[in-house]
Amino acid sequence: MNLNSIKVEYNACDDKDDNGASSSSGGVHKVCMPPHRTTFQKLQQRLSEIFFPDNPLHRFKNQTGLRKFVLGLQFFFPIFEWGPKYNLSLLRSDIISGITIASLSIPQGISYAKLANLPPIIGLYSSFVPPLIYSLLGSSRHLAVGPVSIASLVMGTMLSQVVQYSKEPTLYLQLAFTSTLFAGLLQAAMGFFRLGFIIDFLSKATLLGFMAGAAVIVSLQQLKGLLGIVHFTNKMQIIPVLTSVFTHKDEWSWQTVLMGVCFLIFLLTTRQISARNPKLFWISAAAPLVSVILSTVIAYSIKSHTHAIQTIGHLPKGINPPSVNMLHFGGPHLALALKVGIITGILALTEGIAVGRTFAAMQNYQVDGNKEMIALGLMNMVGSCSSCFVTTGSFSRSAVSYNAGGKTVVSNIVMAATVLITLLFLMPLFHFTPNLILAAIIITAVIGLIDYQAAFRLWKVDKLDCVACLSSFFGVLFISVPIGLAIAVGISVFKILLHVTRPNTNVLGYIPSTRSFQSISRYSTAVRIPSFLIIAVEAPFYFANSTYLQERTFRWIREEEERVKANNEPAIKCVIIDMTAVTAIDTSGIDTICELRRLLEKRSLKLVLANPVGNVMEKLFNSNSLEAFGLDGLYLTVSEAVDDISSSWKPEKPEKPEP
Amino acid sequence: MNLNSIKVEYNACDDKDDNGASSSSGGVHKVCMPPHRTTFQKLQQRLSEIFFPDNPLHRFKNQTGLRKFVLGLQFFFPIFEWGPKYNLSLLRSDIISGITIASLSIPQGISYAKLANLPPIIGLYSSFVPPLIYSLLGSSRHLAVGPVSIASLVMGTMLSQVVQYSKEPTLYLQLAFTSTLFAGLLQAAMGFFRLGFIIDFLSKATLLGFMAGAAVIVSLQQLKGLLGIVHFTNKMQIIPVLTSVFTHKDEWSWQTVLMGVCFLIFLLTTRQISARNPKLFWISAAAPLVSVILSTVIAYSIKSHTHAIQTIGHLPKGINPPSVNMLHFGGPHLALALKVGIITGILALTEGIAVGRTFAAMQNYQVDGNKEMIALGLMNMVGSCSSCFVTTGSFSRSAVSYNAGGKTVVSNIVMAATVLITLLFLMPLFHFTPNLILAAIIITAVIGLIDYQAAFRLWKVDKLDCVACLSSFFGVLFISVPIGLAIAVGISVFKILLHVTRPNTNVLGYIPSTRSFQSISRYSTAVRIPSFLIIAVEAPFYFANSTYLQERTFRWIREEEERVKANNEPAIKCVIIDMTAVTAIDTSGIDTICELRRLLEKRSLKLVLANPVGNVMEKLFNSNSLEAFGLDGLYLTVSEAVDDISSSWKPEKPEKPEP
Repeated sequence: MNLNSIKVEYNACDDKDDNGASSSSGGVHKVCMPPHRTTFQKLQQRLSEIFFPDNPLHRFKNQTGLRKFVLGLQFFFPIFEWGPKYNLSLLRSDIISGITIASLSIPQGISYAKLANLPPIIGLYSSFVPPLIYSLLGSSRHLAVGPVSIASLVMGTMLSQVVQYSKEPTLYLQLAFTSTLFAGLLQAAMGFFRLGFIIDFLSKATLLGFMAGAAVIVSLQQLKGLLGIVHFTNKMQIIPVLTSVFTHKDEWSWQTVLMGVCFLIFLLTTRQISARNPKLFWISAAAPLVSVILSTVIAYSIKSHTHAIQTIGHLPKGINPPSVNMLHFGGPHLALALKVGIITGILALTEGIAVGRTFAAMQNYQVDGNKEMIALGLMNMVGSCSSCFVTTGSFSRSAVSYNAGGKTVVSNIVMAATVLITLLFLMPLFHFTPNLILAAIIITAVIGLIDYQAAFRLWKVDKLDCVACLSSFFGVLFISVPIGLAIAVGISVFKILLHVTRPNTNVLGYIPSTRSFQSISRYSTAVRIPSFLIIAVEAPFYFANSTYLQERTFRWIREEEERVKANNEPAIKCVIIDMTAVTAIDTSGIDTICELRRLLEKRSLKLVLANPVGNVMEKLFNSNSLEAFGLDGLYLTVSEAVDDISSSWKPEKPEKPEP
Repeated sequence: MNLNSIKVEYNACDDKDDNGASSSSGGVHKVCMPPHRTTFQKLQQRLSEIFFPDNPLHRFKNQTGLRKFVLGLQFFFPIFEWGPKYNLSLLRSDIISGITIASLSIPQGISYAKLANLPPIIGLYSSFVPPLIYSLLGSSRHLAVGPVSIASLVMGTMLSQVVQYSKEPTLYLQLAFTSTLFAGLLQAAMGFFRLGFIIDFLSKATLLGFMAGAAVIVSLQQLKGLLGIVHFTNKMQIIPVLTSVFTHKDEWSWQTVLMGVCFLIFLLTTRQISARNPKLFWISAAAPLVSVILSTVIAYSIKSHTHAIQTIGHLPKGINPPSVNMLHFGGPHLALALKVGIITGILALTEGIAVGRTFAAMQNYQVDGNKEMIALGLMNMVGSCSSCFVTTGSFSRSAVSYNAGGKTVVSNIVMAATVLITLLFLMPLFHFTPNLILAAIIITAVIGLIDYQAAFRLWKVDKLDCVACLSSFFGVLFISVPIGLAIAVGISVFKILLHVTRPNTNVLGYIPSTRSFQSISRYSTAVRIPSFLIIAVEAPFYFANSTYLQERTFRWIREEEERVKANNEPAIKCVIIDMTAVTAIDTSGIDTICELRRLLEKRSLKLVLANPVGNVMEKLFNSNSLEAFGLDGLYLTVSEAVDDISSSWKPEKPEKPEP
């Protein structure tokens, strides 16, 4: 058997007549090579699968020039797609939902800005410019844009560990805006270079643990506002936070605690009511604004009696001032800004895309991940120049907007307009808003992120997913957000590697009255075929498992030989490896297979492969290892291999049940 | 369809009669669950697959107590296994091969000690104690133990970057012995905890590039000795080394260069002769010792005429002094010693195991990787207490031993005895051995490690393996050994992740006269089945690819719908996902499948799964997603799915060719 005869075979596969003839005579089918492609074509196809799996240009195929231009405009600015179809009925829905989310986003904006240790007004600025930008570029119809708890929290944590807002307010603001710019740049660049798949590595399990951990930390941090503590730690681990709460018992103020707990109960109750009866969604949506108004009135009315209740204080009137001059790309804190930008950028992206995808799936439309990234990125880049910090699509507000009947991104414009009116005329009203109410709103919002039932489901279905979830939870609680996330991503990647390093192998048996071979341990009807050992390998044949697979194969053979001897059955003469699930192979894997064949030959055992997939076949061919196997060592299916090989053993025909 | 009815089905699978009846009537076969196991049983099986894939205790099964004790003794000390069968004929072979490798290992030991910037005598010490220990514990019969170039090189490089032997000899020795101890501890611990699979992550491609890079650097480093340069850099990157060679041109000594080049040509020629005619192996095996003797005689005879030729100088007589007092576990350099120990330990292990496995495969016996690790580890731990540095199985010496007819590890004992005689009586003879001859021996040894043909084969077979190889080559050349290795391991792991993140998906067609479905792009005889779209996914369904697979499925559907419309064929009504190669699933994957089914249902498309493997089936069941699919959404094979579903569309029967 030399290379040339294999080459002939390779070409013959394309020959329909030849193959048809051989199959109609009931003979053995040939294992074909995949169609020949040059290295460049393979690379091109691989890259297009990596970066353009959705083939975004397909809509431009076979279109006229003008139509292509219109489609391109619609591609980059989705507003041109839905704009012409917009009508009054949609506008009515959008106005209602826009005002609803504005009533939620004003207190949330103020609260989340405080979470990032920024002045409250920045939260309102961030609820004005970014929604406008998003409504131009975004492809999700239901995403309500603004600051979100997780990104705000991470920014506040990471910046405060180095710079204190209370001590160096300008530097802190500069760092916040600079990292927002970096976050935006990263998001837009990831979208532009179509690297969206990187966020897929933050699995749902990881995010579940992360959100729960962050929610616990944030809730505990809010005890500062809820108990009226003045001196509080800037650390974000659970131990220093709890220590801080209990060492400053003397600072607890009973008036604050009383009022805070009342409002917290009120907010949690409205949440419960809306959760039980989705029609009453407006109760929980309106509750924050109602609480803010109520608590402000109370604080104002008792201000002459007590100073125990801390309030927000003076807020400047007017729209976003430009902040380009605040962006600094030098100095000792550049690395910090970059790090904060990368982490908040990725977290914001994850939440934004996940939320966008969720609502798109509910309404059965597609959201283009990479386009969304560009939209969110540009939004943050513009935001960083207009006094905004990191914003993205918020889960809680998008849900409220969806429930309130929002149909398009116009609801974002309505929300921005409402915030604009607030910024221009209503700011003085927030002077007496107590800090405790912001703490209560934040606690109510984040406590909903703790989904212990989902964690329990993870445990039931996939133990390692649950471990990843728990480690990101405890990592965030006890170490820090980036390390917690890194551990969880590490565990998820480890899981993939473990699956490849120690793949499943099964001994297959024949299922009577089919031509199908299945695992003997799983199908009790599967019967072994005398003199054959059929092993299915369930993973790519890689360097990481080639030693293991070789050892494991020998162990299967040893165990089978012991079993056969004990039962007085005919000895094994042929080992068939079912390669159907061996989805790839590398040079170590090829060496192992050749080695295995050589070693088995020394023991007078024949080794054949059944159904190698396309690229495995190609690599076996390129490495010239098909020469060693020849045509009699490769079969299209296990059953053909069994038929063909057992028929060649005429003198001692095995008692194989006839299919 | 509720959970209970599925449960019934699940149990019914174990019922042979029921299943047999249904299959004999030609009906649809049920997809079985794997046998039920508790979480603990699953964990136990998983752990035993990870750590005990070879089931090392199988030989103890069904044996008497005494036999078990003997087997256990043989298990831990292989000498008890082959000892009783040892005879004179074996001894004769072993003596010849032992003396042959001793003649090689004396000059190599001295050279490699210099490579590690250690005094030459340490190299001889390391060729005496470790082989004795290994012959007691080792399970390979052909491994010749002693210092090796790569581990020596790495130790020399990493230690010299912090401490100079010329300036602080005691500290340097302390660090060398301490890191040898750490290397041994690591190796033994890895063996004890059965973590041998970690070294599998250094793929052959990575090692190929690493060895070539190290060989280039080492050869260039030897220009110091070959050109007679006195002031030479301690750095190990190619740029400073070459700079050092050419900035010290004034130090080149023509006598050294002349003599060095002559011996280099002699050594390379003998190598070539042995390579062309394997029977003349003894020529290249004897050449180093001959060169050492010749060059020493020449250097001695011309010593009164010139001092240009640097020699080894005084070497102490006597066997290994104890060095326990040199082990230090404190001070500022502990981290360095630990790092050097870990890296040299892993490299030494890799070479030792790989060499052991190679010769075991050639002689058709098994080497237990984890036991080998313990043997090599204990050997290094004892070595570190008796003035030895890192040792392992050497590829070049094992090859020579094998060629010289060595049969058992007794050849190691013979070699140690020869080294002992040298240490006791022959040391003064090495006083006038010139350094240049050691440089020439090292160059000859390492140049054989550069295998550009293998790199070319990698390129032909697997481009990404070749990239890993090249990056470890250039990483070692231009950055450093650990970083070069880390990059290559990173690329190898990235390859696995890429395979999972962007798996192959194929549209399948029916191959006439079989019940087999194969990729349409690969098999030109495969025909599409009208109204069906059959997609095969070739990877586990994980968080890292769930978004991609969802998008890709929709793209396949879109493309198929366009094709069907263009050809006026019947519209698609059913999408079948062939899960045979989906070897695992996690919670994200399950969510995606359920989501996919829901979204396709909205488009009036039916989604069914064919042949989910055992653990996928189990997870689908545990997550309750089987409820959504029910029994009519799961089939044992694609062909049964096609038959069953198309027969349920009576009014508009598709023109499926009858099998």
